[in-house]
Amino acid sequence: MAQQHLDPTDPTAEVVTGDALAAYLRAQATEFLRALRLHRETGGANGGGPARAQAGAGEKGAGESVDAARALRRSARRISGSLHTFRPLLDPDWSEEMRPELAWLSGTLGLEHAYEARLERLLLALHRLSGATAFPGQVTSAEVGATAPLDSSGPASLAPERGNLTVGAAKAGALLERQLTLARTRAHSTALQALGSSRFHAVADRVAVLASEVPLTPTAPTTDLRPLAAAAEERLTDAIAGLPLVVAGHPYNAEALVHGLSPDPAPHAQDGPWHQVRLLLRLHRYAQEALHGGGGTSQLERSREPGGLPVDMRLLAAGQALNRHRDASEAAAAAAQAARTPRIAPATAYALGVLHADQRHEVEAARFAFQQAWQKQTVSAP
Amino acid sequence: MAQQHLDPTDPTAEVVTGDALAAYLRAQATEFLRALRLHRETGGANGGGPARAQAGAGEKGAGESVDAARALRRSARRISGSLHTFRPLLDPDWSEEMRPELAWLSGTLGLEHAYEARLERLLLALHRLSGATAFPGQVTSAEVGATAPLDSSGPASLAPERGNLTVGAAKAGALLERQLTLARTRAHSTALQALGSSRFHAVADRVAVLASEVPLTPTAPTTDLRPLAAAAEERLTDAIAGLPLVVAGHPYNAEALVHGLSPDPAPHAQDGPWHQVRLLLRLHRYAQEALHGGGGTSQLERSREPGGLPVDMRLLAAGQALNRHRDASEAAAAAAQAARTPRIAPATAYALGVLHADQRHEVEAARFAFQQAWQKQTVSAP
Repeated sequence: MAQQHLDPTDPTAEVVTGDALAAYLRAQATEFLRALRLHRETGGANGGGPARAQAGAGEKGAGESVDAARALRRSARRISGSLHTFRPLLDPDWSEEMRPELAWLSGTLGLEHAYEARLERLLLALHRLSGATAFPGQVTSAEVGATAPLDSSGPASLAPERGNLTVGAAKAGALLERQLTLARTRAHSTALQALGSSRFHAVADRVAVLASEVPLTPTAPTTDLRPLAAAAEERLTDAIAGLPLVVAGHPYNAEALVHGLSPDPAPHAQDGPWHQVRLLLRLHRYAQEALHGGGGTSQLERSREPGGLPVDMRLLAAGQALNRHRDASEAAAAAAQAARTPRIAPATAYALGVLHADQRHEVEAARFAFQQAWQKQTVSAP
Repeated sequence: MAQQHLDPTDPTAEVVTGDALAAYLRAQATEFLRALRLHRETGGANGGGPARAQAGAGEKGAGESVDAARALRRSARRISGSLHTFRPLLDPDWSEEMRPELAWLSGTLGLEHAYEARLERLLLALHRLSGATAFPGQVTSAEVGATAPLDSSGPASLAPERGNLTVGAAKAGALLERQLTLARTRAHSTALQALGSSRFHAVADRVAVLASEVPLTPTAPTTDLRPLAAAAEERLTDAIAGLPLVVAGHPYNAEALVHGLSPDPAPHAQDGPWHQVRLLLRLHRYAQEALHGGGGTSQLERSREPGGLPVDMRLLAAGQALNRHRDASEAAAAAAQAARTPRIAPATAYALGVLHADQRHEVEAARFAFQQAWQKQTVSAP
């Protein structure tokens, strides 16, 4: 299953040693520090609420702050992932201490964005399910808001859209908005607290040191990285081999909604292995970046042109399918959770049921998309 | 698009004339009379409630009565369809009078079964959505019945299944059962009244005459049937050309649920063209039977061995997909309708919302299945 460019026994492949890993980690650390500086400059650390809702900060400042937070998480994930994959080449005490701190940081910083994206996904779905076809871009509270005051509404052109929502869909949207906005606001506060904490400053200091000095083991600079990268890929392919891909490749298998009305309130257990593959796919991708020198460009540069490494489109498609799987899974859970709110109207509960099922079908669709992307990859490999 | 065996310009094909149509109609009329006799013998016309619930009639009698009613509808549909397709070959006054009566009859006789099948489909779906995997065959009220008294429950082995239903799913099942059983009981009474009416006796008398004497036009016995059969096929292929098959062939297109929360209470308008194709496909199939001498066997013989005509498996698959489309469409509407019952609990409404969305996805899956079956047909045609 290992791809040719990863094969450590291939005599034509150039050896990539620990020095390349050190360069990759230095680049990611530098990226982290740059994002942190940008985040502080754009007011990310001194706002009093979610970036979008900030009355003081300009649209541009808020957007840059969001980008900076994303770039922070992005490099934190890459450093953390490399520490995991290439553990034998790095000072073990340092790695052991560093990884949980980076995980804490990217987890804490990611929550606000996750809640925001989840709400947007659910409101878009509510509009789609209401047959509101010509839907202009971003959903705002004013469009859904059965509870929003009239004077806070958006452009007049959105009014007909609102008319397409049933009372149930509008109320479901308002309920989700209340709950997820509250969660987002809390996540924002937590993130702000985290960024001001001594724990965060300790991580930032360690990353600053990493930007100039990577704690490799004595033999690491001349050790081949490729067997460790190959092991990461093997963990991925093993996990994928355990997925029910035959079922997933059969459209409309109705598998994802099998527990749609189960009394078990826990998140769908069947999603777990897919979430795990998503993480392993990411680790594989980061290992490839370390080997081939990619992933070192900034968020902005990256979106213009992928630096160095030609992007593996199939790997990208597989990863996107798994992101969609995760997002739909969590959105479905949020709809089910909202339906457990006491004293909601039956029409609201009905709309949430339709929404939950819709997102579970998105989960199923994402698995199908992953199966298609992955099959392409293994079939066309030399 | 016309298949080779339908091409009237093909010099190698044997001419099929109005005599064959007369033979087909006589056979169907005989079949109708046999089914009617069986229906009377098995007590279908004297029961006091739905066949399943009859305390007096044995299980065998009830089953035979249901089979007899199905056979009655089956031959009524075939006679009516042939009158339509081969109209120019038949006495116009007779045809004009006969067709609406046959449509009334098969419509009236079909409703009871439709409600029963709809309830069964919805209860099965509720169980599937509750993760009740090992599900033994037939669903009965006792399995769902949150409202059913304990002493009316089924075999003990079903108890764990029931435990898998949430309160909402159980209540939704009970509500659907109440509503659809009521509708079925009414349909049964209406069917009984119809079978005892002078209107029905007039139809039966006409069919009895048809069994020996088909009112062909003077030139019909030597007129080629094939151009009329080809026209029926052309109406079918034209209607199929108007279907959104490109979208339907793309799995998970999320098209069927687009109006899942629409305030429009009317049945999904997007389903109409598919229902129309279902009817045209049936007319095409009956025309083929008239041409090739199939379809004349009784229900029982037919299930053992298709008589005469080798069954076109692809046409059969396409037809089954469209039946599934119709059934799921109507089941989804029934779930939405039940959710509009005043004063239901939010948990019930939520379960009905999930159920509605599930059945709309069944609609989408059926369209995909039709597209696959139909594409196979046209691609592999000589």
